[in-house]
Amino acid sequence: MCDQHVSSAAMVGGDPRPLAGVTVVDLTRVLAGPYCTLILANLGARVIKVERPPLGDDARLIGPFVGGKSLYFAALNYGKESIALELRRDEDRAIFESLLGAADVLVENFRPGVLERLGYGWPTLRARWPRLVHAAVSGFGQSGPLRERPAFDMVAQAMGGILSLTGYPDQPPARVGVSIGDIAAGLFLAVGIASALLKRRDTGTGTMIDVAMLDCQLAMLENALTNHLVTGVVPGRLGTRHPNIAPFQAFATGDDRMIVVCAGHPEHFAKLCRTIGRPELLEDPRFASPDLRRQHADALERELEAVLRSRPAAEWLARFEAAGVPCGPVNSVADAVRSPQVAARHMVVEMPDPAIGRLFVAGNPIKLADVPDPLDHRAPPELDADRAAILEWLRGRSGDGRSR
Amino acid sequence: MCDQHVSSAAMVGGDPRPLAGVTVVDLTRVLAGPYCTLILANLGARVIKVERPPLGDDARLIGPFVGGKSLYFAALNYGKESIALELRRDEDRAIFESLLGAADVLVENFRPGVLERLGYGWPTLRARWPRLVHAAVSGFGQSGPLRERPAFDMVAQAMGGILSLTGYPDQPPARVGVSIGDIAAGLFLAVGIASALLKRRDTGTGTMIDVAMLDCQLAMLENALTNHLVTGVVPGRLGTRHPNIAPFQAFATGDDRMIVVCAGHPEHFAKLCRTIGRPELLEDPRFASPDLRRQHADALERELEAVLRSRPAAEWLARFEAAGVPCGPVNSVADAVRSPQVAARHMVVEMPDPAIGRLFVAGNPIKLADVPDPLDHRAPPELDADRAAILEWLRGRSGDGRSR
Repeated sequence: MCDQHVSSAAMVGGDPRPLAGVTVVDLTRVLAGPYCTLILANLGARVIKVERPPLGDDARLIGPFVGGKSLYFAALNYGKESIALELRRDEDRAIFESLLGAADVLVENFRPGVLERLGYGWPTLRARWPRLVHAAVSGFGQSGPLRERPAFDMVAQAMGGILSLTGYPDQPPARVGVSIGDIAAGLFLAVGIASALLKRRDTGTGTMIDVAMLDCQLAMLENALTNHLVTGVVPGRLGTRHPNIAPFQAFATGDDRMIVVCAGHPEHFAKLCRTIGRPELLEDPRFASPDLRRQHADALERELEAVLRSRPAAEWLARFEAAGVPCGPVNSVADAVRSPQVAARHMVVEMPDPAIGRLFVAGNPIKLADVPDPLDHRAPPELDADRAAILEWLRGRSGDGRSR
Repeated sequence: MCDQHVSSAAMVGGDPRPLAGVTVVDLTRVLAGPYCTLILANLGARVIKVERPPLGDDARLIGPFVGGKSLYFAALNYGKESIALELRRDEDRAIFESLLGAADVLVENFRPGVLERLGYGWPTLRARWPRLVHAAVSGFGQSGPLRERPAFDMVAQAMGGILSLTGYPDQPPARVGVSIGDIAAGLFLAVGIASALLKRRDTGTGTMIDVAMLDCQLAMLENALTNHLVTGVVPGRLGTRHPNIAPFQAFATGDDRMIVVCAGHPEHFAKLCRTIGRPELLEDPRFASPDLRRQHADALERELEAVLRSRPAAEWLARFEAAGVPCGPVNSVADAVRSPQVAARHMVVEMPDPAIGRLFVAGNPIKLADVPDPLDHRAPPELDADRAAILEWLRGRSGDGRSR
């Protein structure tokens, strides 16, 4: 398994994944960068984590731990290789530079300025390795007054406005339950990298990609940004409701499970009212159009929830499914990962890990024709686990310099 | 401006964006698909919306409206072209097929089975237009027991588990304040499309990409999925706190503004305690390590908030910034869009719109070297606005069949 990606020429020919043959040198730590390179690895890229000794990626220190190994790290770094390099030491810099010469992409999430001080700023990279794509992700980006400020997920969520939109109107704002500040940045960076590699096929030259967590939060505000700047209205928190559509929210039921019902479309609303035995709601002047239903969302919620509380969640879901009313259970993570649909889609992947035992990770959500899914993956690497193989690969490169 | 993308040969030579020269036929409606193709358009792709007459993209019917035009539609569809085609009419099918012959990518978000019934299932597409990349986004994907079920954003958020993680422990779950079910799917699809176009450069053939909203929710659970399946613990809601790191949350202050402080790193925690005049917290046995701070996050919050409530938010932010403690304001959307950093990064773009007047949209978060930002964009198209130009372009294609 150790050599899975190392004999790259042989692999690429047989690997149907779209990024097979792409080599990524990955200096990133914790989340946004590793999330990006995990996506690339799942699409077939060879990802070589370059970690700083003696501790490596900070995520290795974040619990919980099983068998001494961080599950946080494991979830984000399966399918990658690791080499420990101290970029302030000449010997390790020489190895790093060989890697850059062999690679297609360098991904880093240093604060702006740090890579320059190590001697690998974009002007240097461009001059020495013109085919390299330099992909940088940071809190605030490479420009602007806050560029050198440290940022973490919660800073991006807070400053970008998404926190102010999440939670209940009479409660303080709530964090999005996953680190969407980092995750969104990792996704946008992955789009940029694949696009830059495509362009390189025409131009022969790489580029620099500069993605900021804060920018990505703005790009996810959907129509809230446009609405505010055109109409002046400042959007707030709505619990589980959608700002523009009703009914489109979670409801309590007759047991302790909540369900969501998305019946914004007139046809769905009609089916909903009939299915719950309240067809007269269709004649109610408060609910006579999509816009009126949105305006009277409070009253509509009271009317609907009064009925929905009369029976258990599972019964309503079965009835709504039969009637074609879009709906679903509010799942815990435990419910979600055990759903038959998730199993059918291979979205939970098990792999053996020497320290953890049975490791489970999220699968690849980009399903492609003629690409087996799930594929076998390497377990998350121990720090520096692939040094010998990587050095041997670098020595064996016969100066052909060809890369995709 | 109308012809901006139409004289494509001339444009591509001068357009430095990585997807310049790529033509996307876009059958999608509302959010996940249009969000994906907006990203592609911002990277230089020509996106031709094929809308169903007489109403077109359902997003055109979602308010608020200014000058009779939907802001919801506008936020997602600037920079694209529109042609209205009824795919049940022979004449329009002929135009659609000419578009497929000229295009690189077909993006659609029909429920699985609908495109087949129109006569354009993947086996047909593959046989007739082997270079075409067929990109499909749906609620549950093209396989599995729920494949034909309708899904909307809230169904994906609920079934994927993210809703159960968002909000306060003593309150019902809250919706993520933006439509992350759709947005995440649009992002993963964009990664898949760019990667498939890269692979096509080697193989000469397209592929089919199958992205499900539910799958993408699982892929965003971060370590929650791994933690649960390895340790059995079911994660819950934590308000603004991070599940693994403390202090890393929002705090009330002396005025009505909240701030976030992300001081998980020991160095940041030390700076925080000194800056608020509570250095003795560093000696407190409850807070003596990152793991202890996480275990005693309730007590830590009480200790910190008691001090933070003594002064206004702006004063704390200034002090923390000076001391190097990662922090930020909890911004409303109004605050966020007016931040100097957002302005410096061109993340709010203004364009004239004939109906709306001054239209503001989120900018492109994928900043690239040598690509001017922001670029001029076409206003969001009226339904069928580009029919004549598109038909002329199709007539003028001289059978060279070349595409990227």
